Amino acid sequence: MSVVTSGRYTFPNYNLVFFIFLQLGLHSVEGVWPLPQSITSSPERYPLNPQAFYFTYGSQSAAQEGCSVLDEAFKRYFSLIFPDYSSGRFYSEVKFLQWKNENTLSVSAGQAYLKAETVWGALRGLETFSQLVYQEDFGSYYVNKTEIEDFPRFQFRGILLDTSRHYLPVQAILKTLDAMAFSKFNVFHWHIVDDPSFPYQSRTFPDLSAKGAFHPMTHIYTQLDVRRVISYARMRGIRVLPEFDSPGHTQSWGKGQSDLLTPCYSGSTPSGTFGPVNPILPSTYKFMATLFKEVSSVFPDSYIHLGGDEVNFSCWKSNPDVRAFMLKMGFGADFTKLEAYYMENIVNLTAALNRTSIVWQDVFDYHERHNHMLAPDLILLHIWKGVPASYEAELRAITKAGYRVLLAAPWYINHISYGQDWRNYYTVQPLNFSGTEEQKKLVIGGEVCMWGEYVDATNLTPRLWPRASAAAERLWSDEKQTSDVDKAFPRLKDFRCELLRRGIQAEPLFVGHCKHEYQGV
Amino acid sequence: MSVVTSGRYTFPNYNLVFFIFLQLGLHSVEGVWPLPQSITSSPERYPLNPQAFYFTYGSQSAAQEGCSVLDEAFKRYFSLIFPDYSSGRFYSEVKFLQWKNENTLSVSAGQAYLKAETVWGALRGLETFSQLVYQEDFGSYYVNKTEIEDFPRFQFRGILLDTSRHYLPVQAILKTLDAMAFSKFNVFHWHIVDDPSFPYQSRTFPDLSAKGAFHPMTHIYTQLDVRRVISYARMRGIRVLPEFDSPGHTQSWGKGQSDLLTPCYSGSTPSGTFGPVNPILPSTYKFMATLFKEVSSVFPDSYIHLGGDEVNFSCWKSNPDVRAFMLKMGFGADFTKLEAYYMENIVNLTAALNRTSIVWQDVFDYHERHNHMLAPDLILLHIWKGVPASYEAELRAITKAGYRVLLAAPWYINHISYGQDWRNYYTVQPLNFSGTEEQKKLVIGGEVCMWGEYVDATNLTPRLWPRASAAAERLWSDEKQTSDVDKAFPRLKDFRCELLRRGIQAEPLFVGHCKHEYQGV
Repeated sequence: MSVVTSGRYTFPNYNLVFFIFLQLGLHSVEGVWPLPQSITSSPERYPLNPQAFYFTYGSQSAAQEGCSVLDEAFKRYFSLIFPDYSSGRFYSEVKFLQWKNENTLSVSAGQAYLKAETVWGALRGLETFSQLVYQEDFGSYYVNKTEIEDFPRFQFRGILLDTSRHYLPVQAILKTLDAMAFSKFNVFHWHIVDDPSFPYQSRTFPDLSAKGAFHPMTHIYTQLDVRRVISYARMRGIRVLPEFDSPGHTQSWGKGQSDLLTPCYSGSTPSGTFGPVNPILPSTYKFMATLFKEVSSVFPDSYIHLGGDEVNFSCWKSNPDVRAFMLKMGFGADFTKLEAYYMENIVNLTAALNRTSIVWQDVFDYHERHNHMLAPDLILLHIWKGVPASYEAELRAITKAGYRVLLAAPWYINHISYGQDWRNYYTVQPLNFSGTEEQKKLVIGGEVCMWGEYVDATNLTPRLWPRASAAAERLWSDEKQTSDVDKAFPRLKDFRCELLRRGIQAEPLFVGHCKHEYQGV
Repeated sequence: MSVVTSGRYTFPNYNLVFFIFLQLGLHSVEGVWPLPQSITSSPERYPLNPQAFYFTYGSQSAAQEGCSVLDEAFKRYFSLIFPDYSSGRFYSEVKFLQWKNENTLSVSAGQAYLKAETVWGALRGLETFSQLVYQEDFGSYYVNKTEIEDFPRFQFRGILLDTSRHYLPVQAILKTLDAMAFSKFNVFHWHIVDDPSFPYQSRTFPDLSAKGAFHPMTHIYTQLDVRRVISYARMRGIRVLPEFDSPGHTQSWGKGQSDLLTPCYSGSTPSGTFGPVNPILPSTYKFMATLFKEVSSVFPDSYIHLGGDEVNFSCWKSNPDVRAFMLKMGFGADFTKLEAYYMENIVNLTAALNRTSIVWQDVFDYHERHNHMLAPDLILLHIWKGVPASYEAELRAITKAGYRVLLAAPWYINHISYGQDWRNYYTVQPLNFSGTEEQKKLVIGGEVCMWGEYVDATNLTPRLWPRASAAAERLWSDEKQTSDVDKAFPRLKDFRCELLRRGIQAEPLFVGHCKHEYQGV
C-alpha cells in the first residue's frame, strides 16, 4: 500500500469501509461515539490483560510492519486503552498490531480482527476498538463480544481553527488534532491568516509574518511548525486544508507586502487606509501565483481554501483607478463582477497547481447574479451564512448548479449560549433540502467552525469539546439511527468522560461527574 | 495587631483603608485593576533590580516579621513581580518586607512605602504595587513614580462556587482564590452542597458524604481539604462563607440521613420520593443544630449562608402529616408560613452559635407577605432574582425594611452569551435604586455567582476570568471614575494579560494577543 508519493500523501479512498470483528466484546453501545453504522454486542465479556495484549498485522494484510501510520497508531492506542501500562517494562514486550483476516491474534482468551480497505479506515477502527474497552473499579480491563460494520456517512468532516484573530500555540493545535481523531473528524481547516495577523512564515515572502504577525518571533508558524502539524494530522488520518482568504480579510497582508492592498480614497486623495487586495494590478496576480505555489508545496492536500467572503466594496468604489478598470472591463458599477474576476483568476492559479479550490458561498452568490460561473470541477462551495431556511436554500441552489458543497453554517461553534446547545448541532440534517438524489450526493460533508474573536488557547478546548462531537456523529453516523437527541445524551456524556480520561479538557454537558475528573488545573 | 484569636480569625475592619506612597512609580493607569480611588502617576520611572529588591516591615509598623499573612505575602508577591527570580540564589538573599512609615527602604535608586490600617489592607496594597511593576522587552523591570490612595467601595466582594452540581478538585478552588486576590475579591462563598451531591465530609454525620457524594472517596472535601481552603484563602485576605442550603436543594442530604426529608405522597400513600427537609419533626432541628455546630467550628467566618431559596411546596402539600401540622400551627394553607417557621428556627440555631445568617431573598419575600420578620441584626438578604427592574425593586424593599443586603442577581456569570458580556457586569450600578442614604449603606456588597450546572474544573477558570474582574472593579472602585466601559476596556485587556502571565487561564476579551500567551495546553 503506497501512501506517500513523492513527498505528498493522498487519502486513497474517501469512502472508507472497515470492519471490526471482535471475538471479544463491547461493554455497551453507550461506549461508542460516533455511533457505528452497525453494531451488535452481547453481555458476554472477556478480560484483557495489558501485559499479554498486542496489536499485530494480519499475514494477508497489504500493510505490514513499517507502515508508519499504523505502527504509530498501535503504540498510541495501546497507551490510550491501558494508560497505566503506557510505559515501563510491559511496553517493550508488546508487539503491535492486529490487522488480519485470520485467527492468530491472542488477546487473553480471545481475539479480535479489524478489516479495513485503507490504513485510514484502520485508524477509525482502532479508535472504535479503544472505545469498546472499559476498566472496572478494581482495575481490570474488559471488552464485550461485539460485531461492528462501519463507514462514514460524509467524506468530509472538518474543524476550522482561526489562528489570526488569536494566535494558537502549536501545542494547542496538536491537542485539537488528538481530540479530532477521537471523534473521527478527518479535516483540519486551518484558517491561518486573516485581517488581524499573518502568522504563517512564508519562505518566499518572509515580511508577511515579520510585519504582519502579532509578534514576528513568538506569534508565528515556522515552516517546521507547519510540517509538524501536517505530519501529526496525517498520522491520525486528518487532512490539513490551508486557507489563505482573499481578496477581503487581508489587512495583515498589507503590512509586509506593499502595493498588494487597494488604497482607499477620501474624495480625490488617498486616505492612508487600505481595502481588499487590489484586483486591477498584474503585480497582485504575480504575487498570488508565487504565494500559492509555495503554499501548494508546503501543504500536500489536494484542496486549497481561497476564502472569497465578505468583501467590502466601499474602498474599491472610492479608488479612481479601480473605477477606471471597471469601465475598461465593462463591469459597469457592479463590483461583484470585479470580485468574480479576481476570484476566477485566483482559482485558475491554483487549478494550474493541480489543486481544487474551496471558496465560501459568497463566490457562488456573486457569480450566480451574472451567469458567469466557474466550472464545477474547479471549485467546491462552502456554506457559512445564516439560519436553517437560508442554508437549506443555498444547499439547493448550489447543488442544483452542479457544484459540490460543504456545510458549515449550522456549526458555528464559537457562538456560545447557555445550556445544552450541543443539541442544536446534533439535530442538523444536512440533506434536509429539496433536491434530487444527485444533488444530495454533492454534499460532501460539513465543518465545525471555531472562529477566533473570543477564543485562544485558554478556552479553545472546553469550547470545542464535546460540543463538536455532536456534529461529528451527525457527519459520521446513520441519520435514522441517530434521530433521537435524548438517546444520544448518555452516550455523549460517557464519551466526554472518556475525553477527560485521555487528557482532553472537555467541558461538562450537564450536572454530574466522571470517574476521572480533569486534573490539569 | 492580633489577627489570630483562639483558633479563629476575624477580619478586624471591613472598611479597609490603606495607602501606598511610592516614591517610585507607575507605568500607566492601564496597569491597575480594579482602579484605585486615587492615583497619580508620572512618566518618571525607576528600574527595579530583583537582586537588590526586598520587602521589609517598617520600624513603626504594628505588624513585624512573624506576621504570617504578610511574611507569606512578601514571598508570593516577590515571585509574582519577578517570576524569573522566584527561586535560586537570589531568592535566599531577599529580606521580605516594606511596610513602614519611614524612608530606609532601598529598591534600587528609590523606595516605596505602603501604609495600611490592617494586614488585609496591606495585602491589597501589595497587589496594587505588583501591578505597577512592568518588564521591558530586554528584561529590565521598572516602576513609575506614583501616589495612590485606596479603599474598597463595598466591604463584601464575593465569588460563589458551586461544588455540588459538579465536584471541583481542591486545586481548582485554590487557583480561584489566587485569581480572586488579584482582583481584590475578599469573600469565597462556598455553595458546598446541594441536590446533586453532598461532598462535605462531616465529622458528625459521615454518611452524608459517604452516601450523598458523587463518589465517597474521590469526590469529597475532607476536613483537611476544608482547612486547607480556609487557610489558603485567609493568607490572601479572603473569607470563606459556607452555604448549607435548606430546606430545599437537599436531595443529596436525604441519602445519608434518614427521616430528614419530607416523604411525598401520591394520594394517600407515600410515593417513595422525597421533598424538602421535613419541617415538622423535632429530629430535624436536632440534626440541624448538631450539623451547624460542627459547621461553625470548622468555618471560622462570622457569617453562615443558610440558603432558603426555591422551596417547592408540592411535596409538603401532598403529605398528610405536614398538612395536619399546618392546621395545628394555624398556618392555614399558606406554605410560605411553614417555610418561614422553618427558616426562623434555623436562623435562631445559628444565632445561638454566634453567627450571622445570610439567606436568599426568598426568605424576605415570604416573610414580607405575613408581616412576621426576623430581626435585621440576625440576617442579611441575598438578591439573586431577575432583571434590573426586579432586583432594583428588591433592593429598595429590603433596605426599606432595614435589612442589610448583598447583590448577586446581575452577576450570574455562569449565564454565558456570545461576545463581550463583561460589559454587562461592568455597567451594573448597585446603588441605582430609589432610597435614602441610610438605605444605600445597607448594601454591603455584591457577589459573582458561578453556578455549576455546566461548569467544572475543565471550564471554570476561562469562564470566570476576566469576566468576574469586571464586577470586581464595580465593587471596589469609585462609580464616577469607572462610568465609561470603553475606557475600561484596554485596562481590562492588560489586566487579563497579567492574569495569563501569572498562570491564570483567563479567556480573551476580543481579537488580539498577549506577550505571554497561555502555555498550559
